Amino acid sequence: MQALVTRPGHAHTTRIEDLPAVEAREGEVLVRTLEVGVCGTDREISEGLFGIPPEDGPLLVLGHEALAVVERNGYGFTRGELVTATVRRSCGHCIACAEECPDSCLTGDYSERGITRLHGYARELVAEDPGQLVAIPKPLGRLGVLAEPTSICERALRHARTIGGRQPWQLERALVIGAGPIGLLMTYLLRLADVEVWTASLEPENELVEKSGARYVSTHAEELSELGKFDLVVEAAGNAQLMARTLGLLRRSGVACLLGIDPRHQTVELDGRVLGVDTILENRVLFGSVNAHRQDWLAAVADLDRARPSRAVRSFAVRSGATCRGRTC
Amino acid sequence: MQALVTRPGHAHTTRIEDLPAVEAREGEVLVRTLEVGVCGTDREISEGLFGIPPEDGPLLVLGHEALAVVERNGYGFTRGELVTATVRRSCGHCIACAEECPDSCLTGDYSERGITRLHGYARELVAEDPGQLVAIPKPLGRLGVLAEPTSICERALRHARTIGGRQPWQLERALVIGAGPIGLLMTYLLRLADVEVWTASLEPENELVEKSGARYVSTHAEELSELGKFDLVVEAAGNAQLMARTLGLLRRSGVACLLGIDPRHQTVELDGRVLGVDTILENRVLFGSVNAHRQDWLAAVADLDRARPSRAVRSFAVRSGATCRGRTC
Repeated sequence: MQALVTRPGHAHTTRIEDLPAVEAREGEVLVRTLEVGVCGTDREISEGLFGIPPEDGPLLVLGHEALAVVERNGYGFTRGELVTATVRRSCGHCIACAEECPDSCLTGDYSERGITRLHGYARELVAEDPGQLVAIPKPLGRLGVLAEPTSICERALRHARTIGGRQPWQLERALVIGAGPIGLLMTYLLRLADVEVWTASLEPENELVEKSGARYVSTHAEELSELGKFDLVVEAAGNAQLMARTLGLLRRSGVACLLGIDPRHQTVELDGRVLGVDTILENRVLFGSVNAHRQDWLAAVADLDRARPSRAVRSFAVRSGATCRGRTC
Repeated sequence: MQALVTRPGHAHTTRIEDLPAVEAREGEVLVRTLEVGVCGTDREISEGLFGIPPEDGPLLVLGHEALAVVERNGYGFTRGELVTATVRRSCGHCIACAEECPDSCLTGDYSERGITRLHGYARELVAEDPGQLVAIPKPLGRLGVLAEPTSICERALRHARTIGGRQPWQLERALVIGAGPIGLLMTYLLRLADVEVWTASLEPENELVEKSGARYVSTHAEELSELGKFDLVVEAAGNAQLMARTLGLLRRSGVACLLGIDPRHQTVELDGRVLGVDTILENRVLFGSVNAHRQDWLAAVADLDRARPSRAVRSFAVRSGATCRGRTC
């Protein structure tokens, strides 16, 4: 059975390999992979900078953004049903994982499909714990492969709302920095919630942003600080220097959310008065968010289904370079 | 009637001045000031760097940390009762102030006793809105003047718990940076909640920290990063460069809280990987907190009363250079 494998810690070892056939054991659901999305994490793993193989050897099957179809009836699933699956699984020994919140794991001993100690979905067949499967509504079709990056945005927004909501706060005006898959999906979720959104990136224009009713800002042309201040700023460009600037772009009680990873060894600079005066006197917050809880996966699927008829999301599905077709599609 | 006044915006204008007698109007309670605490904000105002006078002229009566005694029965208060009063009052036109949360005011148009657009308590008599008074239990006595700085810590802790509690989280180990009044009171509140506390400052030793069961760390002798990581880090030293370092001292899901103001114009530096990788992958947060809600004042008075018999708080009350005796005490 063919699979897309890599040897974590070793750059340029990603290749198609023949692996033994997968069989579902008692309590598992056999699914066939239809699509696998590729993101920055996959690129980092493939460059030897991230990822841990499972105990069965030095190779890791890639693929944590998946769309699959159920092969056999059972455990509440029906043959032909479209599904995706959560990425992170319990470490087994922290209070967060005990409360079924591995997204908030306190030990770091979790496993993650296609990333950390667990093979991914970039293979023909996968045997999965039914409790980790998430049903994809039929009309969503191949858009279902976007459930994983959307779940990341749903969790970040849920946390932002809880953090912002510790005091009276309204999410009226948001800035999304970065227009990759996470930046675009965050833009769409905020637009679904009727937030006034500005999305900034380096390109001169971006139709996928503007079709959603958000305003696109080319950072070559406009300085972010000239756009006014925001209730929420999301950094999805993966630039630590920009992350440091987010605190200065916030309104009173504003929330800055970091989603893009920047692994570079560097020193970033921050305006001392933004941190030492404004952040305190204006009750501002900066937080990072990773992974997603099952509730965020369910919200992601529901919101993708809601957004499906929109021109922006249909264009995104057609043009997205973020998803590639699996071999068995 | 004598009062401690200053001319905001003009350094070294703080002085005792004779002002017209204060009289309580319908709906107000007349109180006599017993004690007024002096903090960094007072120093900043006195240096001409902060503060706005009320509309009645260029002078501002100082004093926002007060202990007072009720002069006449009425509006639920009895002559001889000890009281303190909230500092910040509604802006009148934001959703936070409409919900009686001026501590989270979204416009900045609030007034603050002794700081912003409202005279303070450093005068013989004050006419006060009974809704802003907070009763001080008799046994607390002059410790009641600590209600204001304690309310700042209560609010910060309440927000930290809400922010941390957005996901499964335990506040087991905390670091307090700074051992001024806010650092000490925060240390005591955390010790009251049975948290393992490390309190760091520049002095070689600090008995007031150690008497509470917290461990004192002289930052000349020990590097903060050698103390292990923390669920909560509170910056109460007013040093923006230290604030920037707090994110790197956190455990997974850790919360950094900024309380000390650093008004210096400077650029601070931050490890790019702490911000660009650790903050995201470990769900860390940094937030600023200012002022306090009425519920925090009530919690402050209750916790001070609980802590009253402790050696640490009694020593603090005796030695504190943070409070000075009012003229009418």
